[in-house]
Amino acid sequence: MALEPGVSCGVCLRCKEGRYNLCPDMVFAATPPNDGTLCKYYALPADLCYKLPDNVSTKSGAVVEPLAVAVHITVRQGGVKQGDNVVIFGAGPVGLLCCAVARTYGARTVVVVDINQQRVNFAINYAATRGIIAENGKDVEQVAKDMIEECELGRGADVAIDASGAERSIQTAIHVLRPGGTFVQGGMGKPDIQFPITAMCTKELNVKGSFRYGPGDYDLAIQLLGTGKVSVKDLMTHQFAFADAEKAFEVVKAADGIKVIIEGPSDVAHDI
Amino acid sequence: MALEPGVSCGVCLRCKEGRYNLCPDMVFAATPPNDGTLCKYYALPADLCYKLPDNVSTKSGAVVEPLAVAVHITVRQGGVKQGDNVVIFGAGPVGLLCCAVARTYGARTVVVVDINQQRVNFAINYAATRGIIAENGKDVEQVAKDMIEECELGRGADVAIDASGAERSIQTAIHVLRPGGTFVQGGMGKPDIQFPITAMCTKELNVKGSFRYGPGDYDLAIQLLGTGKVSVKDLMTHQFAFADAEKAFEVVKAADGIKVIIEGPSDVAHDI
Amino acid sequence: MALEPGVSCGVCLRCKEGRYNLCPDMVFAATPPNDGTLCKYYALPADLCYKLPDNVSTKSGAVVEPLAVAVHITVRQGGVKQGDNVVIFGAGPVGLLCCAVARTYGARTVVVVDINQQRVNFAINYAATRGIIAENGKDVEQVAKDMIEECELGRGADVAIDASGAERSIQTAIHVLRPGGTFVQGGMGKPDIQFPITAMCTKELNVKGSFRYGPGDYDLAIQLLGTGKVSVKDLMTHQFAFADAEKAFEVVKAADGIKVIIEGPSDVAHDI
Amino acid sequence: MALEPGVSCGVCLRCKEGRYNLCPDMVFAATPPNDGTLCKYYALPADLCYKLPDNVSTKSGAVVEPLAVAVHITVRQGGVKQGDNVVIFGAGPVGLLCCAVARTYGARTVVVVDINQQRVNFAINYAATRGIIAENGKDVEQVAKDMIEECELGRGADVAIDASGAERSIQTAIHVLRPGGTFVQGGMGKPDIQFPITAMCTKELNVKGSFRYGPGDYDLAIQLLGTGKVSVKDLMTHQFAFADAEKAFEVVKAADGIKVIIEGPSDVAHDI
Repeated sequence: MALEPGVSCGVCLRCKEGRYNLCPDMVFAATPPNDGTLCKYYALPADLCYKLPDNVSTKSGAVVEPLAVAVHITVRQGGVKQGDNVVIFGAGPVGLLCCAVARTYGARTVVVVDINQQRVNFAINYAATRGIIAENGKDVEQVAKDMIEECELGRGADVAIDASGAERSIQTAIHVLRPGGTFVQGGMGKPDIQFPITAMCTKELNVKGSFRYGPGDYDLAIQLLGTGKVSVKDLMTHQFAFADAEKAFEVVKAADGIKVIIEGPSDVAHDI
Repeated sequence: MALEPGVSCGVCLRCKEGRYNLCPDMVFAATPPNDGTLCKYYALPADLCYKLPDNVSTKSGAVVEPLAVAVHITVRQGGVKQGDNVVIFGAGPVGLLCCAVARTYGARTVVVVDINQQRVNFAINYAATRGIIAENGKDVEQVAKDMIEECELGRGADVAIDASGAERSIQTAIHVLRPGGTFVQGGMGKPDIQFPITAMCTKELNVKGSFRYGPGDYDLAIQLLGTGKVSVKDLMTHQFAFADAEKAFEVVKAADGIKVIIEGPSDVAHDI
Repeated sequence: MALEPGVSCGVCLRCKEGRYNLCPDMVFAATPPNDGTLCKYYALPADLCYKLPDNVSTKSGAVVEPLAVAVHITVRQGGVKQGDNVVIFGAGPVGLLCCAVARTYGARTVVVVDINQQRVNFAINYAATRGIIAENGKDVEQVAKDMIEECELGRGADVAIDASGAERSIQTAIHVLRPGGTFVQGGMGKPDIQFPITAMCTKELNVKGSFRYGPGDYDLAIQLLGTGKVSVKDLMTHQFAFADAEKAFEVVKAADGIKVIIEGPSDVAHDI
Repeated sequence: MALEPGVSCGVCLRCKEGRYNLCPDMVFAATPPNDGTLCKYYALPADLCYKLPDNVSTKSGAVVEPLAVAVHITVRQGGVKQGDNVVIFGAGPVGLLCCAVARTYGARTVVVVDINQQRVNFAINYAATRGIIAENGKDVEQVAKDMIEECELGRGADVAIDASGAERSIQTAIHVLRPGGTFVQGGMGKPDIQFPITAMCTKELNVKGSFRYGPGDYDLAIQLLGTGKVSVKDLMTHQFAFADAEKAFEVVKAADGIKVIIEGPSDVAHDI
C-alpha cells in the first residue's frame, strides 16, 4: 500500500476542476500545523490509499511519493514527450526521478546538471544521457550556449526542469531553452531571485511552478514502478528501524544518501 | 488595408506547428537589420495584407498592429475568458488595448495599474473597471494583498498582464495571482529582474512570454475593430503628414500622446 | 438560490480530474432510480447550492439548470469563441440557450435551424443572427452546401451543435463544418443513426458528446444571467402553482411552451 | 532520404495555425489530379525531404509514410499515453503501426481486433498485447462488453482506433470506450454508417477524424525508426524492381502481403 498524504476539501472550484493540489483547505501530512505520518496508526480516506502491484515491495512503495512529485513536474507540468531534449538541474532524489521519468516518456536527450561530480556520475548511470558539472563564476548565458553546443540541443532544449532551487540553475535553464520551450520550477530555494525576464518574454517560454501532485499522479508513479520503467532500488541508500527514526533525519541533514527509508513499527502489519 | 510586418520562413518546425512568431528566420520591419515601412512603397506577400472592412478607416487600420499585440497577449497567451478577474500593469497603448480586449472577452473585473493618475483615469474611461495608482516603496506582497481586497479579487486574479516592463509591476503581478493563475509578460524593461520564484512555484502559476503576434491575430484584431467591440479612436492622439514624420517620433519620445499616426505620402493612393 | 441536482462521488478518477459529470456513481435527481426535486424539502450538499446575485430572481434561477447545459455544450465542449461561425440545430429551450451563449462568446454568425418557422422566428428575435427552415427530402450534403453559401460561412462552420436529436440535423451538421471544425451532440434522439463517417474523417473533425454540466458551469450560467448577457425572461412561457404541477407536465408534453415554471410550495420560504 | 508527398500552400489559416494537412490547396502525390511518385525524378521542396539517420535504410525509409499516418492517428489525434488501454480495429499495415506506436507511448494494453486469425497472430507477435477475432452476427454492444471483461479494460478503453473502415468495428469501438474516452477514425470504408450517437453523447466521447499527417509527424516517425522503438522490417513482405512495379500493385490488390516495396530505378542514385 502507498499513501498519498494530502487530503483536499473536494468541493472547492480548484478541487472540482482537477487541480486538488491547489486546494486552499488542503490538510497535508508533515506540513504545519499538521503532524507527519511517523506514527503507529495514521488515518487516511480510502481513495488516498493505493494498492501496490505484487511485484512492488512496501519498501519501494515508500518512494512513490517523491516519484509522484517527479511525475507531476516532468509529465503534467513539463509535458515531456517522445524526442524532447530535456535539461534537468539538480541530481538529488527529485532530479534523479525526473531524469528517469523523462527517459521513460521518450526524451531523446536528458542532460543532468549538478555541482557535484559524484551525483552527476550517479545520474548518468541511473537515467541521464549526459552530465554537466555546473561551475560558478561563468556567465550563465555563455554556460547555456556551451551546453547547447556540447549536448547538441539544436536551437535549445525543449524542456528544462529545476530541481535544485539554485538561482544560477534557474537562470541557466531559461537561457538553455529554445523559443517556445517549457521551464518547470520543481525545487525550492530563495523566495526571490534574479530572473532573465526579457529572454523569457522574447522566446515566449512557458514557465510553470510544480506543487506536489494531482489527479492520477500516484497511479502513474505506481505504474512506472510496477512495469519496471522506473527503478528506485539504487536510490534507497539507507534504511532504519522505526525506533531509530531520528538517525534517518541526521543522514538526510548531512546529505549523505539519496533516499532514507524508515521501517514501519515492528508490531504493526504494514505489508499490505 | 492593414499590413502585418513580419515575413517568416514558412518551412521551419515553428512555422509549421503554428508559432511563426518564433521563426528564427523572421524578417521583421523596423527590426535591425531590416528597415521599417516608412517609405513610399513597401513590398509584402499577399497573405500579410489584410483588407479592412468598410467601416474601418485606413487610419484605424494603422492601429491593427498594436491591437494584434494586445490580442496575442490577452487571448492567445493569457487565455482571458468570461468571468475572469484580470489585472493589467501599465496604461500605455498596449496596456490600454489589453484592457479593451479583456473586457470584450468577458472579464468580470479589469484592474489597471499605473504610476500616472491621468493614465489610470484614461484607462477607466476607456475600458478598465478599476484603477490603482502604483506607489513605490511599499512591500509588493502587501500591495498585492491590498489590491486583492480592494478590488474583491477573491483568492487572487485569474490573469495578470505586465505591459509596463517595470520590475515592481512584475513582482506585484506574481503576488496578486490566485493559485493556478496565468501571468503574461508583454512589456520590455530590464533584461533581468528580482522575481518571486517561490510564490510562482507553490501557486503553480503559468508564466508566459508574449512576442509579437501569430496565426489569426491580425484577423481577430480587425474583427474587433469592425464589430466595434474595440474602439481605437480615442487612442490616436496625434497625426502628422508624411513630410513631418520626424515630429511624430519626437512626440512619442516625449511620451506626450498615446498613438501617433503618420499619414501615407500624399501622392500614393493608400486608401485600399 | 439555484441547485445543481447531481451529487458525484468526489473520489473516483473522473471526479478528481475535473469531469465529475462522468462519475459512475453519480446520484442525479429525477434520473431513475432517484426521485426528482418536486418535493417540499430536498437535501443537497452545500457546494451544489449557488447563491443568486441580487438582480436574478429565484424564478430566473430555475433556468440556471438548462443554461448550464447550454454552457457545457457551447463553451466547454464546443469551445465557441470570438469570430466563430456557429450553426445550431433545434430551437427548443437548449438550442435557444446555446444561441444566446454563442453570441455572448463572440460568435460572428449564429445560424439556427429548425423545422418550425415560428421557433426559428423566435430564435432570431432572441439571439440567432440567421434562421433556416429545415426541409425533409433534400439531400443533406446539398442542404449543407446551400447553407454555407446562403449564410456566407466560407469553407464551412467552425462549430455545429445539435440540440434536436434528429438524424438529418446531425448529418447536415457534419457536412456544414469546415475542415478541422467541431461538432457537439447536445440532444437525444434515436440511439443509432446514419452518420457521414468519411466526411468526419477526411475533414478531421472533432466530434464530441455533451452530458449535463461540469466544474464551473453553474457559476458561469449564473454569471451570464447576473450580467444580463443572457436573458431568460422570454423563455419562461408558463408558470404553475406547486399544487398544479401536473398541468406543467401536460404543457411540456404538448410542446406548447418553451420553459414551464413550477412555483415552490407556498408554505416554504424558497426565495433565498 | 524520406519524402513527405504533400505540398501545402503555406499561407492559408489552416497552414499557419499548424494543420497543413487540412489545407484546401494541398497538392498531394497520387491523389487525382496529381500523379504519384513512381517516376524517375520527382521534384519536392527541400523542407519535405527528410534525411534518414545512418541506421535507417532507404528501404525502411519507404515505410516512413504509413508510419507517419499511424503517428498522426495514435499520438496527435488519439493522444495515447503512458498507462492507456487502447483497442485497435484492423491489423493491416496502418493498424499494425498504430499498435507499435501505442506500445512505444506506454499503452498498458493494446488489443488488436481483426476478422483474420493470421493477422491477429501477426499483430500479437509484432506489437499488440492481446488479440480478438471479430465475429459477425453478434450484437456489437455485447461484443464490446465481452472485450472489456476479457481484456480487463476496467470501465472501458481509454482510446479506440479504427484502422479497418468496417462499420461493425466503428460501432464496437464506440461501445468499448470508457466515459470521456477518445475514438479516432483512421480507416476509410463506406461514406455513411450506422453510428451509436447516443452512447457517444452520454459518455461524452471525443471522436476524431485523422487525415494524413501534420507538423512533426515525419520527424517523429523517423525518430521511432532510428531509435529502434518501432521496427518495420517484418512488415515489408515483398519487394519488386522498378521495372516490375505493376506486380507490386497486384500483390497489394490480392491482399497477399503487408507492405510491398518498389525499388527505385536502378540508374538513379537513391540512397541518400
